[in-house]
Amino acid sequence: MTGWATPGAALVTVGNELLYGETVDTNAAWLGRALTRLGIAVGRKFTVGDDPGQIQAAVRSAMDGADLVLVSGGLGPTPDDVTKEAVAALLGLEVHLDEGLLEALAERFRIRGYSRLPSPNRTQAEVPEGAIVFRNPHGTAPGLGLESGTCLVVLLPGVPRELRGIVEDELAPYLRQRFESRIDPIHHRVIHTSGVAESRLSELVTPLLPADMGPITLAFLPDLRGVDLRLTARGVSPAEAEDWFGRMEAALEPAVTPWRFEAESGDIAEALNAALSLTGMTVATAESCTGGLIAKRITDRPGSSEVFLGGVIAYADAVKVAELGVSVDDLRAHGAVSEPVARQMAIGVRERFGASAGVGVTGVAGPGGGSPEKPVGTVWIAIALGDSVDARLISLRGDRTAVRELAAQAVLAWLYRRVSGRESGA
Amino acid sequence: MTGWATPGAALVTVGNELLYGETVDTNAAWLGRALTRLGIAVGRKFTVGDDPGQIQAAVRSAMDGADLVLVSGGLGPTPDDVTKEAVAALLGLEVHLDEGLLEALAERFRIRGYSRLPSPNRTQAEVPEGAIVFRNPHGTAPGLGLESGTCLVVLLPGVPRELRGIVEDELAPYLRQRFESRIDPIHHRVIHTSGVAESRLSELVTPLLPADMGPITLAFLPDLRGVDLRLTARGVSPAEAEDWFGRMEAALEPAVTPWRFEAESGDIAEALNAALSLTGMTVATAESCTGGLIAKRITDRPGSSEVFLGGVIAYADAVKVAELGVSVDDLRAHGAVSEPVARQMAIGVRERFGASAGVGVTGVAGPGGGSPEKPVGTVWIAIALGDSVDARLISLRGDRTAVRELAAQAVLAWLYRRVSGRESGA
Repeated sequence: MTGWATPGAALVTVGNELLYGETVDTNAAWLGRALTRLGIAVGRKFTVGDDPGQIQAAVRSAMDGADLVLVSGGLGPTPDDVTKEAVAALLGLEVHLDEGLLEALAERFRIRGYSRLPSPNRTQAEVPEGAIVFRNPHGTAPGLGLESGTCLVVLLPGVPRELRGIVEDELAPYLRQRFESRIDPIHHRVIHTSGVAESRLSELVTPLLPADMGPITLAFLPDLRGVDLRLTARGVSPAEAEDWFGRMEAALEPAVTPWRFEAESGDIAEALNAALSLTGMTVATAESCTGGLIAKRITDRPGSSEVFLGGVIAYADAVKVAELGVSVDDLRAHGAVSEPVARQMAIGVRERFGASAGVGVTGVAGPGGGSPEKPVGTVWIAIALGDSVDARLISLRGDRTAVRELAAQAVLAWLYRRVSGRESGA
Repeated sequence: MTGWATPGAALVTVGNELLYGETVDTNAAWLGRALTRLGIAVGRKFTVGDDPGQIQAAVRSAMDGADLVLVSGGLGPTPDDVTKEAVAALLGLEVHLDEGLLEALAERFRIRGYSRLPSPNRTQAEVPEGAIVFRNPHGTAPGLGLESGTCLVVLLPGVPRELRGIVEDELAPYLRQRFESRIDPIHHRVIHTSGVAESRLSELVTPLLPADMGPITLAFLPDLRGVDLRLTARGVSPAEAEDWFGRMEAALEPAVTPWRFEAESGDIAEALNAALSLTGMTVATAESCTGGLIAKRITDRPGSSEVFLGGVIAYADAVKVAELGVSVDDLRAHGAVSEPVARQMAIGVRERFGASAGVGVTGVAGPGGGSPEKPVGTVWIAIALGDSVDARLISLRGDRTAVRELAAQAVLAWLYRRVSGRESGA
């Protein structure tokens, strides 16, 4: 199956608030996902302010080589809404009042108790000549499709609910039909990993890549919580894509297995909770430097009450002693950030809460509290599970937020490997 | 004071994941806000995939008429990171290895326990000729400033923490100096509030606004944690701006005082910790539905060990009984989400931890667990402080994340009002 001439799209989002960063451009991301799902490739995005000249320049650039341009924002009734006039002028189209739309609009306002249509809203019944009108189920500005050569320019309102309603109910079915013969399906498979640096993973993965990757491209997507490997297949059928994904996964398996986890959300807490649930185990947490973050991560997931009993945040040393049974002598001899304290926290919380597994974390999150022997980022983590209690020293880099996030992620990833049987206790 | 030729900027964000909508482009919004604060006007944004030709076309368009172009993404060590090579080629600059950067990079990896620099990371020490290097405090790819005529093109990594670190620590001071004579000074004052809805605050504030607001504009910036009122003054000196801000604050005072808090970070946990510290009080937390989020919020702040002793996450009912002394009879009679249980959690944790204040939270975060009498979003919160124990029922709207965030924020805001004396116990 070759020879797709994948329809290519560009997005133009309009609004001063998007440039100033007062609003995050969620429409662009949503439209990107919707078009990708339809098999239409988004090649570029533009954002401009509420200015006719800027809008025209962006739409002109966007149309270059594109089959489809979606423009969102600036269709409202106020004077700063200039998109329709600007694009119609760019394409040389006259704008006229559509009596049918005007009547529907007036009816909409009558239902809401207005005796007459507010005059600013009249402009929303004005339509460039030849426009395809896409009904707006949630608002007053319809979507408008304008033909220009082989390119379709669609104007959409910027209110997310209205934009989504129009695309889902009206535009998506229309585009599916319009581009039916040309749609190049894009398939994705994501391999989630945690506990390995992007550069290290790349070193391990690269030599395993087959010389012929066929329709597949590979991307590394890192964040504080791990690295995702995203496989993308283009221009093949779903069955062919599955086949390629299977081959790629088999090739990469030796490199990724130690760190891989399965979770639709991409959150290792989802994988951990599923693994705990599968084995009928429960967990309780004893946290010092992470201050509740590990418990928060576990309970972010719906249904966590099945596997999570609770935890103690033992910030003060007296709490470590009274609530978790940590030895005063060990606290004195080794300090709060030490292997024996981490171990006793894990043992103590498991015992007191009657859980299958207990975790203990104690470290220096910073910015204060570091010393030459125990600099900021020094963290002891421990797991009590089955017959073993294991502890590890990890040295983390970054600010307070990073140290806490990385420590929590390290505990969740380690516990997941233990519970899922990828790693055994000492 | 007129006649500024405000410096104009354009943004280019790079990454297939941004086009496909897998990642929402928070960098663009963040950079928009940062540049606006600096007094630099963002005129356009472009987003393109990880493709050298597309990147070059976007940067070329972005440079047209701009004083500054910020390009984010594609500086990582993997083969899909092509931004640096593409932009250097566009500007006709050779790329060479910078020995100083290489050494710093190797040192960074040595500290993390690597015996040698992973070979893919070597490319991150390569620099286009003449580049200004902006240090990256949180990662391996530095920011790179490239001069082209009167335009400065700055390449930044796409990882949000790294991008923000570089901009805050290195790039912002540089830009302030570079554009000093042309920047139209923008002054901001932010009034933080929590516990009042945007529409209600707007109703209260609007009648108090002076007829003549001079150079001041007012914006309401709401999020899950509260509503910020942002006063902006343009085109005046710092002293004039201060004067106007003082007048505006005096005018708005009656409306905002009950909900106002002072925190440089904008986080009410900062204000709470300061208020606790000032009064010599300590706090301990007993959390059910928030699952550690309140403790996490308090301990997000540096220095929180001075005021925060610790907490119990009592997810399972057995933990509420054993660790906090909640009555089994009350749990049976009223259920876990009830006033007596919230009160007993607050009392129990205060007593066991020996804190000045105890808080208790129990609710239905969803998506499951709701009932007709106690739908998702039903949350009881309680504070034990001094001689009083107070409890409140709050009804929250939204998904699991929203309910947990809003519940945690309600507890922190209420405790802040109590500790700072804005509100007294029953």
